[in-house]
Amino acid sequence: MKIYDRAGFPNPARVRIVLAAKNLDSQVEFVPVDLIGAEHKHLPFLALNPSGVLPVLELDDGTFISECTAITEYLDNLDGRPILTGTTPKEKAVIHMMQRRAEAELLDAVGHYFHFATLGLGDTLRAFKSTDWAGREDWGKREGARAIAGMEYFDTVLQNQSFVAGAAFSMADATVYAGLAFAEVAGLALPEAFKNLIAWREVVSALPFVSGRSGQMFLAEDLQRLGF
Amino acid sequence: MKIYDRAGFPNPARVRIVLAAKNLDSQVEFVPVDLIGAEHKHLPFLALNPSGVLPVLELDDGTFISECTAITEYLDNLDGRPILTGTTPKEKAVIHMMQRRAEAELLDAVGHYFHFATLGLGDTLRAFKSTDWAGREDWGKREGARAIAGMEYFDTVLQNQSFVAGAAFSMADATVYAGLAFAEVAGLALPEAFKNLIAWREVVSALPFVSGRSGQMFLAEDLQRLGF
Repeated sequence: MKIYDRAGFPNPARVRIVLAAKNLDSQVEFVPVDLIGAEHKHLPFLALNPSGVLPVLELDDGTFISECTAITEYLDNLDGRPILTGTTPKEKAVIHMMQRRAEAELLDAVGHYFHFATLGLGDTLRAFKSTDWAGREDWGKREGARAIAGMEYFDTVLQNQSFVAGAAFSMADATVYAGLAFAEVAGLALPEAFKNLIAWREVVSALPFVSGRSGQMFLAEDLQRLGF
Repeated sequence: MKIYDRAGFPNPARVRIVLAAKNLDSQVEFVPVDLIGAEHKHLPFLALNPSGVLPVLELDDGTFISECTAITEYLDNLDGRPILTGTTPKEKAVIHMMQRRAEAELLDAVGHYFHFATLGLGDTLRAFKSTDWAGREDWGKREGARAIAGMEYFDTVLQNQSFVAGAAFSMADATVYAGLAFAEVAGLALPEAFKNLIAWREVVSALPFVSGRSGQMFLAEDLQRLGF
């Protein structure tokens, strides 16, 4: 299998956490994509994923799978013993619900804030982000506020349970974790008032499949290119 | 089980198609929600789904499941014989990838066009849609163009295969079908050039679990309230 991604970016981090949790790292060849240079918005990358987003999983039979949830479903079910996507109908449902909320209410909102209300990944990529419209900054800031509201929601969820979708770590935790790390880089720090979320983040960051390189955000060379 | 929804709206239609495909209609009590009156943006509905969107599935144990993909995972796996979400790791992955694309590139884009570039569902709901910012129409129109590009993408996909995720109908087909029906009501007609998509829509609309009320868009009384 191959993974086309860029270490240190939020969606790649989600899949790298999944790979580490399933002990599949060694079976994957990583193909780096120059995100800041907008390599994913041109051919040949667009042939692998016409949506132009990372990461992409290439199976040994040549099939390309994109979208983190889809890649996670594949990797988690490969050995017939899913640990991140649920086993009963109810577990599957709750995990997919929280996964979608983690994307819509947090990770995607942070992404919109980052790309529309800040300089984002710079000029090369901005040309592909349709940011040349009046009000884009206003909208980006609203999305930033929505991301903070999302953090508040997950803080409430974690008041009564250990992980985002219940008693066990699931793919939804990887998404919230990557969302918070992305938010921090984007300038949306996790408010101190969200104590349950802060405690959960400490627990997650110490998990063996997160504490290594998988959960790490933004490579030093990329931060330098971005002027941080 | 209960389903909180509104007949004739796109996301409710997705789940109604799933219920019909799984022969589960008779086991569900439908609880109508006044979408145009923004009932889903207030308590008590927000207690069922803090994201404030339809539909919501209530299990007999009192658990609430929202987000169509999550509800579909539950309903499709209930009898241990999934027919809409895949059985092998690769099938699951491809179906989830196409489901996500159908939402992101088509259904959600249509929704943004409808709510931001047109009068949408009217004044009551608009107050909850953050539409009071400069450039919202411009953005809505871009989303409309993105929806048409999404149709073009699915037309290309259907050039070489019978259904959105391969040789068999899956939840991703229900999403594209609801997306096209929503687009038509919103004023984004399916271009005649997309012949594969047009032919696929005819096949899908004739399927026994779609041809009944499940795939029907917008009740006459709602269209009247919206001034259509």
